[in-house]
Amino acid sequence: MYTLVINCGSSSLKFQLIHTESEEVMAIGLCERIGIEGSKVTYQRKGEEKSVTEASMPTHKEAVKIMQKLLTDEQSGMIKTLNEVRAVGHRVAHGGEIFTSSALITEETLKAIEECCALAPLHNPASLTGIRACKELMPETPMVAVFDTAFHQTMPEMSYLYGIPYEYYEKYKVRRYGFHGTSHSYVSMRAANYLNRNYEGMKIVVCHLGNGSSISAVQNGKSVDTSMGFTPLEGLLMGTRSGDIDPGAMQFLMMKEDLTIAEMLDVLNRKSGVLGVSGVSSDFRDIMKAAEEGNHRAQTALDSFTYRVVKYIGAYAAAMGGIDAIVFTAGVGENDESMRKKICNQLAFLGIAVNEEANSKRGSEQLISTADSKVAVLVIPTNEELAIARETISIVQ
Amino acid sequence: MYTLVINCGSSSLKFQLIHTESEEVMAIGLCERIGIEGSKVTYQRKGEEKSVTEASMPTHKEAVKIMQKLLTDEQSGMIKTLNEVRAVGHRVAHGGEIFTSSALITEETLKAIEECCALAPLHNPASLTGIRACKELMPETPMVAVFDTAFHQTMPEMSYLYGIPYEYYEKYKVRRYGFHGTSHSYVSMRAANYLNRNYEGMKIVVCHLGNGSSISAVQNGKSVDTSMGFTPLEGLLMGTRSGDIDPGAMQFLMMKEDLTIAEMLDVLNRKSGVLGVSGVSSDFRDIMKAAEEGNHRAQTALDSFTYRVVKYIGAYAAAMGGIDAIVFTAGVGENDESMRKKICNQLAFLGIAVNEEANSKRGSEQLISTADSKVAVLVIPTNEELAIARETISIVQ
Repeated sequence: MYTLVINCGSSSLKFQLIHTESEEVMAIGLCERIGIEGSKVTYQRKGEEKSVTEASMPTHKEAVKIMQKLLTDEQSGMIKTLNEVRAVGHRVAHGGEIFTSSALITEETLKAIEECCALAPLHNPASLTGIRACKELMPETPMVAVFDTAFHQTMPEMSYLYGIPYEYYEKYKVRRYGFHGTSHSYVSMRAANYLNRNYEGMKIVVCHLGNGSSISAVQNGKSVDTSMGFTPLEGLLMGTRSGDIDPGAMQFLMMKEDLTIAEMLDVLNRKSGVLGVSGVSSDFRDIMKAAEEGNHRAQTALDSFTYRVVKYIGAYAAAMGGIDAIVFTAGVGENDESMRKKICNQLAFLGIAVNEEANSKRGSEQLISTADSKVAVLVIPTNEELAIARETISIVQ
Repeated sequence: MYTLVINCGSSSLKFQLIHTESEEVMAIGLCERIGIEGSKVTYQRKGEEKSVTEASMPTHKEAVKIMQKLLTDEQSGMIKTLNEVRAVGHRVAHGGEIFTSSALITEETLKAIEECCALAPLHNPASLTGIRACKELMPETPMVAVFDTAFHQTMPEMSYLYGIPYEYYEKYKVRRYGFHGTSHSYVSMRAANYLNRNYEGMKIVVCHLGNGSSISAVQNGKSVDTSMGFTPLEGLLMGTRSGDIDPGAMQFLMMKEDLTIAEMLDVLNRKSGVLGVSGVSSDFRDIMKAAEEGNHRAQTALDSFTYRVVKYIGAYAAAMGGIDAIVFTAGVGENDESMRKKICNQLAFLGIAVNEEANSKRGSEQLISTADSKVAVLVIPTNEELAIARETISIVQ
């Protein structure tokens, strides 16, 4: 049997067909520019070349039908009918305070996801459209919603409340939610497994460093704090996102540049981060190359990024009263050994020592700290789709 | 001889007459509601009762004249003429990137302070008015400007740059400045003296916790990071200020509550912090009382405040690659032993241990850590006026 994992963005639909027992990825696809001129579909069957085709997709509904066709096609397909799909796991961006874990999709679940639309006005409606289109095609197949926020719902009040009038929390649920939950949960648990230690008795800091980046403090298997907040803008410098900034600086800039708050947020979300500081690119590889060639601002962007990661690790070590393991994951976390080394060297006062040979290996789960390092440092490749597939199966069983 | 220390706010003027050699405070005064209906003057001569009188003060100029009259009055005065004042030290809120230390006031200095008015539009103009009025009265007396930002000008780029387009820094100098500089400088240096250690070889975290609160990382006698930013709004929860918040939450609230950015900032500056979370008061003593009486939100406000302090200490320990001393100062830092204890207990993983007896003493410089604590923890009462007086004398000598 197979598990189908679906991730709908506001104008995209990603899917993976995963073999339930072997956990092999059998097929992978991406429908892009849904509802926009020039939509296209990328599809790859296990062991074969990628194909890219154009297709009309006014809504997510057509994208779901294209997915069905690709997966069951005599030529390109992996399965004869969608009946071979044991269950579907849907990634959903925002579960608000309602969802503290993944949920079997029922009419009630859908209503609750709808209630969370105010908190994620671009993403939750897309997920709902995708789920509804799938349910039409596969009315008998159990489906599960896996939320990006659910893992962080264990945070205590002092972590999730902002220092703003309490009525804003009561009226609108304005608070820290955190994102990348599936990744933080997956890699922290994998780290405990790798170390052969009890997940429920560990203090772990997870550094999910990619184009979007967040750090979490995972204590006894539960998220107790995380750097992203009410939205995925807060916290670290990211590819194009500013992370933390003085609200007073926003007011000043809005006045000077005559910006509305929406325009200001657009700058902070799409023109800031390491792109904004370096002026080079949002891609860390480009910035690193520029820095090596002597571009001062590129070096500053890297230093600023690294420095903020270091500060968050220190903050979360303090928040948990110590730290047993640090886990690096996602694009930058998995692949940038020099950044990992810099971060760990700065944390030597915590008894952290890096094994340079292990740190230089790529592609698999690695312990990169030395045998006598007081804190275990690991690289654990994240695998959101696999984590969603496992969640899904565990819930429908 | 005497040193006169003057601190002009947007509608106030505080002054202290300090004996230059003994450093005793001879007289202290406060002109309030300058330019507002109902202005009044509070004055206290050493060893005498406080007097409060009404007085017309349309501008800071009249306030300066009232100060002169009080100080030289046959009845209330401490001196015969202002000629007995050796020098005047003026606290100035913002020195931008121009002032990296205190400066003798010349026409050039005044011009440069004027240039910084864009960065502190309420405070710098008031300082300038106060300085000019004083210069008219005492044209021959040397005067010194002591900046709240100057001590933090040693921060490296990675600390002071935000993750926003670099052009905003180039065009408008939008960056982290930090405040409370005189206090951070004074108490960190006093801590090194107290410990009989070389200030230039220490890693110190200063927790200036009052109604306005900020934390700084002082490495080798230099500020390398601080929690307040472009404005004094960023960082910790404060009496009424929010500190750090997701910019996305601001956008959401502005939309929901139909607020302009100015109104939003007013909420974040004046209705937030521990007042906003607790709903009780901005005064920590009131909140503590309410918490003891079982008010949950009051307890949450205290926990949130403490938690953020703990995280910043952890972050700055990581930023400096370790930590030799933590210094508590200002109203809450000097007087709230239970909060100090909570903070230090949470930092036990750094080898910090509190001496409870020492921690319960009040009013003087105290080492409150145990003899075998790996990090020295001190309470150092801050004394901004004395620090300004010393700075002033060191510059005019």
